[in-house]
Amino acid sequence: MSGTLYGLGVGPGDPELLTLKAHRLIRSAGVIAYPAPDTGESFARAIVAEYMPDGATEIAIVIPMRSERFPAQEVYDSAATEIAQALEAGQDVVVLCEGDPFFYGSFMYLFSRLSDRFPTEIVPGVSSLGAVTAAASQPLIAREEVLTVLPATLEESELERHLADANAAAIMKLGRHFGKTRAVLDRLGMTERARFVSHASLPNQNVCPLSEAPETAPYFSMIIVPGKDAHV
Amino acid sequence: MSGTLYGLGVGPGDPELLTLKAHRLIRSAGVIAYPAPDTGESFARAIVAEYMPDGATEIAIVIPMRSERFPAQEVYDSAATEIAQALEAGQDVVVLCEGDPFFYGSFMYLFSRLSDRFPTEIVPGVSSLGAVTAAASQPLIAREEVLTVLPATLEESELERHLADANAAAIMKLGRHFGKTRAVLDRLGMTERARFVSHASLPNQNVCPLSEAPETAPYFSMIIVPGKDAHV
Repeated sequence: MSGTLYGLGVGPGDPELLTLKAHRLIRSAGVIAYPAPDTGESFARAIVAEYMPDGATEIAIVIPMRSERFPAQEVYDSAATEIAQALEAGQDVVVLCEGDPFFYGSFMYLFSRLSDRFPTEIVPGVSSLGAVTAAASQPLIAREEVLTVLPATLEESELERHLADANAAAIMKLGRHFGKTRAVLDRLGMTERARFVSHASLPNQNVCPLSEAPETAPYFSMIIVPGKDAHV
Repeated sequence: MSGTLYGLGVGPGDPELLTLKAHRLIRSAGVIAYPAPDTGESFARAIVAEYMPDGATEIAIVIPMRSERFPAQEVYDSAATEIAQALEAGQDVVVLCEGDPFFYGSFMYLFSRLSDRFPTEIVPGVSSLGAVTAAASQPLIAREEVLTVLPATLEESELERHLADANAAAIMKLGRHFGKTRAVLDRLGMTERARFVSHASLPNQNVCPLSEAPETAPYFSMIIVPGKDAHV
């Protein structure tokens, strides 16, 4: 009998935003895998550090830090092989995922390599989107409004086309695309309604009107543009 | 000193998908409010029933059930008055919200009435969207894909226009708009990629390709159309 692969959402950063289910699975886990940068600490592991069981085998999936953190496929091939060995030996493997596993998460690169061969369960988590709207104390969408979630990595023309048609929007993956994104929102007259949030739910959380945002945006930041019905 | 108003996400239905923070706040709450139908049980309260503390004052916000469950403003006026009295008396008030408080939730009707007068904190929860993609074991968006979240209550032409331009989509509030929505997805050639999920995370959860979905959709159901990069 092979083990089960768990894609486990650990939420946006505050360890208390872990679900009871994720907490239970981590506490009883024998093998725990997580993405990690090539220098410094794994954010996913840091979120749950206080809950990590003694003696668990840890598999750090070391992602070389490049612009946009685009994953190296070889890294996931190698991690999938290591995880598969544990699963084949009958061990359950918990993969820690920042936020929600399927909301633009890197877990899908393991999922696509393993889910057809092993029992797989996804444990949803509080997404960055939920954390950001909570931090901003700002409802995002109401009634019949349409929400558009888009990565700032899109070409400027595409970004503008999608935003021009949006009732409400959440713009992710800002990083070096922050300036371009602000310019588009300015042109569309959406800056006044927009808020900037970085490090939602963490002690260094920052929330401000987009017009007062800092010059540069960290990786863990988002712009939200509430719909007109939701804006209070 | 007035009390604090908490908008507390209780997640999609599985009591174990509550966050540790929501669990703590409920366990220590003196006043707990929740939406309830005029007949039958409150779903939000049922999710956390096993965690409800003895002796808490409960405020049921009774929403007359109509098509689309559109809220009666008078109900929220009256509930806001009752909650304000507790807050003014220095008591904290926890409002239970299905899923995430700000993801199309009815909490915003209390928020807009109370948040400018009382300290307010939003505790994000696992959203129905996270629960549905987990239930379907299907990543929704990857890389540079744009996600469109839309209510099926839109006019058919608007629904079609937004879906025609979507990389990936989640369609909520199906109810009596299910047939119309399926017709639009058929015309756009999106049915093959689409999945239907009802009662995600609950014992009666149902997941199937949209082409095999039942004739009618319950209130707690959703259609997801994964992006082409995310589809596995």
